Amino acid sequence: MDTWMRFMSSDGGVVFGRVEGGYLHEYESLDQPVPTGAVLSTRALTPLAPCAPGKIVALWNNFHALAAKLDKPVPTHPLFLLKPADSVIGAGEPIRRPLSYAGKIVYEGELGIVIGRRCRDASSLEEAADAIFGYTLVNDVTAADLLNENPHFPQWCRAKSFDTFCCIGPAIVSGFDWRQARLVTMLDGVERQNYPLADMVFSPAEQVSLISQDLTLEPGDVIACGTSVGVGSIKDGATVSISIDGIGTLSNTLSAARAETAAQARPITAAGTV
Amino acid sequence: MDTWMRFMSSDGGVVFGRVEGGYLHEYESLDQPVPTGAVLSTRALTPLAPCAPGKIVALWNNFHALAAKLDKPVPTHPLFLLKPADSVIGAGEPIRRPLSYAGKIVYEGELGIVIGRRCRDASSLEEAADAIFGYTLVNDVTAADLLNENPHFPQWCRAKSFDTFCCIGPAIVSGFDWRQARLVTMLDGVERQNYPLADMVFSPAEQVSLISQDLTLEPGDVIACGTSVGVGSIKDGATVSISIDGIGTLSNTLSAARAETAAQARPITAAGTV
Repeated sequence: MDTWMRFMSSDGGVVFGRVEGGYLHEYESLDQPVPTGAVLSTRALTPLAPCAPGKIVALWNNFHALAAKLDKPVPTHPLFLLKPADSVIGAGEPIRRPLSYAGKIVYEGELGIVIGRRCRDASSLEEAADAIFGYTLVNDVTAADLLNENPHFPQWCRAKSFDTFCCIGPAIVSGFDWRQARLVTMLDGVERQNYPLADMVFSPAEQVSLISQDLTLEPGDVIACGTSVGVGSIKDGATVSISIDGIGTLSNTLSAARAETAAQARPITAAGTV
Repeated sequence: MDTWMRFMSSDGGVVFGRVEGGYLHEYESLDQPVPTGAVLSTRALTPLAPCAPGKIVALWNNFHALAAKLDKPVPTHPLFLLKPADSVIGAGEPIRRPLSYAGKIVYEGELGIVIGRRCRDASSLEEAADAIFGYTLVNDVTAADLLNENPHFPQWCRAKSFDTFCCIGPAIVSGFDWRQARLVTMLDGVERQNYPLADMVFSPAEQVSLISQDLTLEPGDVIACGTSVGVGSIKDGATVSISIDGIGTLSNTLSAARAETAAQARPITAAGTV
């Protein structure tokens, strides 16, 4: 197992590499994992999300326990939505409440698959597994009241696409065996989720293979494997910490601060085509 | 009105600029529209999609005529899904049938808004309008049978995210007045859509303002404004041509050719977590 992180250096540059004993051994990039020879102390560096995905593929209903609780059949193909690149933040960065939204915001602790090489129409599990760089943690933050606000169109993308609504980190671990691991979510220190990853409907390699037949996965893209039981709401100011032994802990606080322009943010109505 | 295109040059490089009288006046980029001084004959160049969006925001139910036909109320906020960067092709490029899908593929002729500068929480229509670089044409291709394949989760993203399922082009026109224009879709030479853009529920500036309060729009991103009545299926080998006077015609053919590995493409089932 190797641990990979991305940092901002003091001059504003971005560095990526393998972390060991407080030092970053810099590599060219995630899709070109060639050492540059540079070794940097992580104390002088600011952590970022460990990759910069072009898109995040986020699964729904991918755990048997959740399907049973929702009383839904297990899907026969991964059910997913897309979250955009701008929704990503790293460990420790604040989740920001949208200016235009005063409703319920929920956490969803998830295993994240980080793609290491372009993957399209992977027809075997071996080919799919080869495209996986490693595993990380994802908090798939959701503006829950928007999901079914319109009865004719479930707004999965909108509810999950706000800036800061995709927490990823703190690290990517390659060679990680997800089969034996559990994911634990703590809300302000109280355990809310604790589920075995072995309960997944589609394994990581199955997800990569099947999703790669729907769209092309690019290096750095993340598949959020879906959550299980125990999802709940985050009050303003509360901290969500998601952990998997061997990967680490992803902590993010929902910032109570809303920008001062909130009151003026939505003067537009649907009346007419101005 | 200026017409902007993107091309591949004979050495494989990508050039972007203003086209006039068969010549490309090269500009640095869409978000830095500064002339480089180079002038190239377009005859020696291969057209590409006129921008390279990081994401495409695709609207549903944004025309009064379609809402009436569907017997759905007009939405109070843009209803959208996301299409990924890899789904984009330009005018003249083939739409490819997915290896794993033998069902109905439909065209949706749409106006496309091309974003010129980063736009977040645009609270006025003026600010939103300033973020619009220009307008293009979009064929929002959809694997229609997948939309409601799973009764518990409408698969909007999956049905519309396949590679080649977002045709964009042939050009971006800045200073274009969409209010007087009609969009016409021809299928193998037969008119199938002919609708006025003034029938839009949310105008382009309203879309940019409201969507920018949900997610950050980046330069080159495209908003597909939604389609109106007349959507229909494309048979393998058929050509869809979408036109707006003043922008041009976007033609793409659904390639009948499926890759030879089709039969082996989906050996994976949901049985167990291999």
